[in-house]
Amino acid sequence: MTTRRATLKVGLLGAGRIGRIHGQNVAAHRDADLVAVADAMPEAAAALAAATGTRVASAEAILSDPGIDAVLICAPTDTHADLIEAAVSGGKAVFCEKPVDLDAERIRRCLAVVERSGQPLMIGFNRRFDPSFAALEARLRAGEAGEIEIVTVISRDPSPPPVDYVARSGGLFRDMMIHDFDMARFLLAEEPIEVFALGSALVDPAIGAAGDVDTAAVLMKTASGRIAQISNSRRATYGYDQRIEVHGSRGMLRAGNIHETTVESATAAGFRADPVQNFFLARYAAAYRAELDAFIATCLGGTAPTPSGRDGLKAQILADAATASAKTGKPVAVSLTEDLT
Amino acid sequence: MTTRRATLKVGLLGAGRIGRIHGQNVAAHRDADLVAVADAMPEAAAALAAATGTRVASAEAILSDPGIDAVLICAPTDTHADLIEAAVSGGKAVFCEKPVDLDAERIRRCLAVVERSGQPLMIGFNRRFDPSFAALEARLRAGEAGEIEIVTVISRDPSPPPVDYVARSGGLFRDMMIHDFDMARFLLAEEPIEVFALGSALVDPAIGAAGDVDTAAVLMKTASGRIAQISNSRRATYGYDQRIEVHGSRGMLRAGNIHETTVESATAAGFRADPVQNFFLARYAAAYRAELDAFIATCLGGTAPTPSGRDGLKAQILADAATASAKTGKPVAVSLTEDLT
Amino acid sequence: MTTRRATLKVGLLGAGRIGRIHGQNVAAHRDADLVAVADAMPEAAAALAAATGTRVASAEAILSDPGIDAVLICAPTDTHADLIEAAVSGGKAVFCEKPVDLDAERIRRCLAVVERSGQPLMIGFNRRFDPSFAALEARLRAGEAGEIEIVTVISRDPSPPPVDYVARSGGLFRDMMIHDFDMARFLLAEEPIEVFALGSALVDPAIGAAGDVDTAAVLMKTASGRIAQISNSRRATYGYDQRIEVHGSRGMLRAGNIHETTVESATAAGFRADPVQNFFLARYAAAYRAELDAFIATCLGGTAPTPSGRDGLKAQILADAATASAKTGKPVAVSLTEDLT
Amino acid sequence: MTTRRATLKVGLLGAGRIGRIHGQNVAAHRDADLVAVADAMPEAAAALAAATGTRVASAEAILSDPGIDAVLICAPTDTHADLIEAAVSGGKAVFCEKPVDLDAERIRRCLAVVERSGQPLMIGFNRRFDPSFAALEARLRAGEAGEIEIVTVISRDPSPPPVDYVARSGGLFRDMMIHDFDMARFLLAEEPIEVFALGSALVDPAIGAAGDVDTAAVLMKTASGRIAQISNSRRATYGYDQRIEVHGSRGMLRAGNIHETTVESATAAGFRADPVQNFFLARYAAAYRAELDAFIATCLGGTAPTPSGRDGLKAQILADAATASAKTGKPVAVSLTEDLT
Repeated sequence: MTTRRATLKVGLLGAGRIGRIHGQNVAAHRDADLVAVADAMPEAAAALAAATGTRVASAEAILSDPGIDAVLICAPTDTHADLIEAAVSGGKAVFCEKPVDLDAERIRRCLAVVERSGQPLMIGFNRRFDPSFAALEARLRAGEAGEIEIVTVISRDPSPPPVDYVARSGGLFRDMMIHDFDMARFLLAEEPIEVFALGSALVDPAIGAAGDVDTAAVLMKTASGRIAQISNSRRATYGYDQRIEVHGSRGMLRAGNIHETTVESATAAGFRADPVQNFFLARYAAAYRAELDAFIATCLGGTAPTPSGRDGLKAQILADAATASAKTGKPVAVSLTEDLT
Repeated sequence: MTTRRATLKVGLLGAGRIGRIHGQNVAAHRDADLVAVADAMPEAAAALAAATGTRVASAEAILSDPGIDAVLICAPTDTHADLIEAAVSGGKAVFCEKPVDLDAERIRRCLAVVERSGQPLMIGFNRRFDPSFAALEARLRAGEAGEIEIVTVISRDPSPPPVDYVARSGGLFRDMMIHDFDMARFLLAEEPIEVFALGSALVDPAIGAAGDVDTAAVLMKTASGRIAQISNSRRATYGYDQRIEVHGSRGMLRAGNIHETTVESATAAGFRADPVQNFFLARYAAAYRAELDAFIATCLGGTAPTPSGRDGLKAQILADAATASAKTGKPVAVSLTEDLT
Repeated sequence: MTTRRATLKVGLLGAGRIGRIHGQNVAAHRDADLVAVADAMPEAAAALAAATGTRVASAEAILSDPGIDAVLICAPTDTHADLIEAAVSGGKAVFCEKPVDLDAERIRRCLAVVERSGQPLMIGFNRRFDPSFAALEARLRAGEAGEIEIVTVISRDPSPPPVDYVARSGGLFRDMMIHDFDMARFLLAEEPIEVFALGSALVDPAIGAAGDVDTAAVLMKTASGRIAQISNSRRATYGYDQRIEVHGSRGMLRAGNIHETTVESATAAGFRADPVQNFFLARYAAAYRAELDAFIATCLGGTAPTPSGRDGLKAQILADAATASAKTGKPVAVSLTEDLT
Repeated sequence: MTTRRATLKVGLLGAGRIGRIHGQNVAAHRDADLVAVADAMPEAAAALAAATGTRVASAEAILSDPGIDAVLICAPTDTHADLIEAAVSGGKAVFCEKPVDLDAERIRRCLAVVERSGQPLMIGFNRRFDPSFAALEARLRAGEAGEIEIVTVISRDPSPPPVDYVARSGGLFRDMMIHDFDMARFLLAEEPIEVFALGSALVDPAIGAAGDVDTAAVLMKTASGRIAQISNSRRATYGYDQRIEVHGSRGMLRAGNIHETTVESATAAGFRADPVQNFFLARYAAAYRAELDAFIATCLGGTAPTPSGRDGLKAQILADAATASAKTGKPVAVSLTEDLT
């Protein structure tokens, strides 16, 4: 007698850039089947379906298909909350790209629906699954740095997005720094109670004209006095700069970037190494795989996924606070208690 | 009117560890189809065929199938030369894992058959395709280090192979250092004319008892006076240590290892980073893909593959010379001229 | 005819730890003579006088000696302003250890006396003279990082000072971070207009009980939107951690620590390097020499010294603002205009 | 009652570049007095005497002065053996710059005189005293790398010496690589029994025309099978390249170069660090001080100095063997037994 291995039947909503990554990772996963792909652009859905050997379906068909156990939501942000509600109401586990919504109130209502449904919801904060960042966090939890005192997160994109994207993005704090708010929470192991933010438009004046910033820094404090520093830039000439550093009573743990190659030259001009990996899909390729592994294992194992919907809400609350702080010039108190919803 | 993209039909002979790597890379390649897999162990062939969506066939059937354009030879070393001869005689392009044979005379006869056939033969010296080593070589050819003076190749395996493997391996110089002979030739851009070798059994006395060494170093010189240093160990506690360094008139280029993660700790004990990648299939995963890309492109483009059968023969001649030098204690002259065969 | 080389006659007020460093550097300088040493502790003065081949004198005698061109003030902080005033009024150039005073008003009055005297006053912000930090600043000024966007200063002491020192130190922002405020100004090339500070007592509860903090972070903004981040800790298990990083439109420049040796080990536990230099006098030994070189050259050349008394005042104003911000929880506006005094 | 601290009275023979370094280190040493300086060039002796506050004397006067305990020999190589013999016969301890002589037979006769005299003789192999190399060796002796298997020494000068210097230097193996032979012996902890050398004139054809090489590599083996690799170049565009690496059963220890500053830039062209220290007097400044410390402590403590005259002889024998090997193309057996003299 052989033990039959459970397989998760997965539908994908959204076949854009990140949808393609997740779709291919599901298709290659031994514990999951990608059973259908939907996209508002039929050719996008068809291309991904062909590449992964699956079929195209409408979002509605996927959401109402009783043979589908879980959906991955990679559609535009403004559809996330509705799709999550429909999916969990239809008895499906959900993996949703960040953010649930740009409006914290809408997120709260959505999470209430999720919680009533009893279905798992996981939010795509992929950086928690970067092998180096995940290893750092595990070593932190094991006490290698002792009591945590200062968490530093540096995040710099290679180049700014188009201004029209910026205009509907919710602003840098919600669109870009939200990953760093989640990372700071992940590392701090204690909720921030205060957020102070500074922002400037130094990279592209058009971003400033659109009411946003492209260069920003945040200070946060927890109740016990731990401090988190975050800095962001929408431009880095030397690659996609993603670093974390945690200082504690026993020492420091840090992790960072990967150079394009290991080649180093030494000439009269000095020693030279390559830029760091430039493209987020390459930089975080392993993280995207590990994230899906975790979602699939969670669904099959019946355990609660992390980062959860509440993690998504908390990051959003911090991003809102930072946005307000940068506007008003004052620190903003936040309360990330457990009865958020 | 659309241009039809050519697709290479590939058969795989040998579904062991390295065969599975190549088989999966062919199966995932957009310009190639893996059409059949053969292995003396039927379950191995069946498992790989299932994983790649292809069929099992006998080696004979693959070699005689007119619909197959190219074969990948990943079978045991003592079958390589016969399989190459059969394949090229059947009009197929061949990719063969190193070495063609442990006997240089047998290689010469085989290459004669290959050359008469007009079919391309590529040898699997995968390290030339490591992205960092390949980038280093390209920058060397572009003159970044000036005139080459000293080439250093360091190669240390995490742990020694079983003694019974050692006994039939042809010895460290032919089994392990052969990769470094090829790398030295790749970097030197000039043929060695002399080989001096030292070897010891320091890692495992049983290796010495079996007549082999596990720790070795070689010096080679070219006609113009360029020097190559190679060192090998069958053991490295800190991972799979693979480094190259080239010193020239304008400076130095070097490339090396990748740590398991980017995490660094700093405590009272100092700064600590992870060991380097430990497993050759992980360390050279990108190299294996790039190697197959090159083979497939060569076959479809009608150009001559590199490294060629002659490159395989030349590395074997250097390995033979090193083996003789280590035995006799004397340097051995070699002549890697173009009329080798 | 030979040109006679000018020699600066220097008197030293204070033969404690830092006084000994400066005294020995003057004594070894080819353009200066250490002509007298004063200290409230006669043995301290005598020991340093013996070691440098000079004589002991009272502070009063040094200040009134017409043969002395310049004095170095290395006495306790609460004597600095009075000694500066006496020295410049007596026609002497002055090098004074930071700070001029813990009270900005007292500094203003002192600088008014200095400015009326026409004598040069240089403040001992030694870090500007660290060869790596000075080189970084020069490359920044040459445009290598483009327009400056984010300046980051990290400063962590190996271990906290005694609590009784803390109690009379003026607090972490004035005692420790004042160096980082000066460094931020040095690198930003534009004055901060706002300071927000967070502080906690995480290292030693007794420091908190004494009304101070031992872990702190600051955000500052300039009028054009440049951002500076500073973080401090009174403890670092892995050495004296002193790093700067500047991000700009063309890239990043950073500089940092020196390991105790260059030895690196690689074992099954990974790669290990030494802690970084642990003692500030060793870490900044070259900076102390370069600082005195600059002071002596300035005095002999008749040029204005940098960092000036106004630089000292500006750093103090930022430290005061940070102290107030940490107490009130609000950002504090500052105006470091040229008519400060 | 106070304990009187012993002070070593030192005379210096030779006030050239290296003599000035040693003279200043003795003058600054608390346990030694520099009592006289001799040089064939009176102005050189006078300048150093003035800088160190001592007097000029003739070599004969120094050698016959009963008030002088020890002499430092920094005169031209061809005077070393005679001066050593005169000094030890006069009851003085001797520190002599390498080499004792270019002729091993002359060294043997000199050492016989030294041994009969009972006076200590220390040879200036300064690299053993480099803080990083010394720390590495201590950790090796403590077993951190386990059983030693492969020792690698890399030594590259920034630029070749004048050809007329080359012509009377004894050749690269005796003039430059002799330091590396000593370092290899220091690290191997077992005597080499065989030397194989390759050399080429790749940097400067005039060096080849003068009968010497400027690029060289050596392989050595010990009785138990340990292997040493040495490579030398008379040119390195990126600084004075001095590295050691030891591989053993438990792992690897390595140490190397120090960059001119810690500044690192990151731009679209990649990451760039400074060249390494370019000048041997700066690179080994700490080593020269530690070497004199050891000599002075040895003289005052009545213990035997290391590296000894025999260490000097053994390095010379290895250099002679390498010179012969490079000429004949054959490995040369050596026997560095204890009854060398």
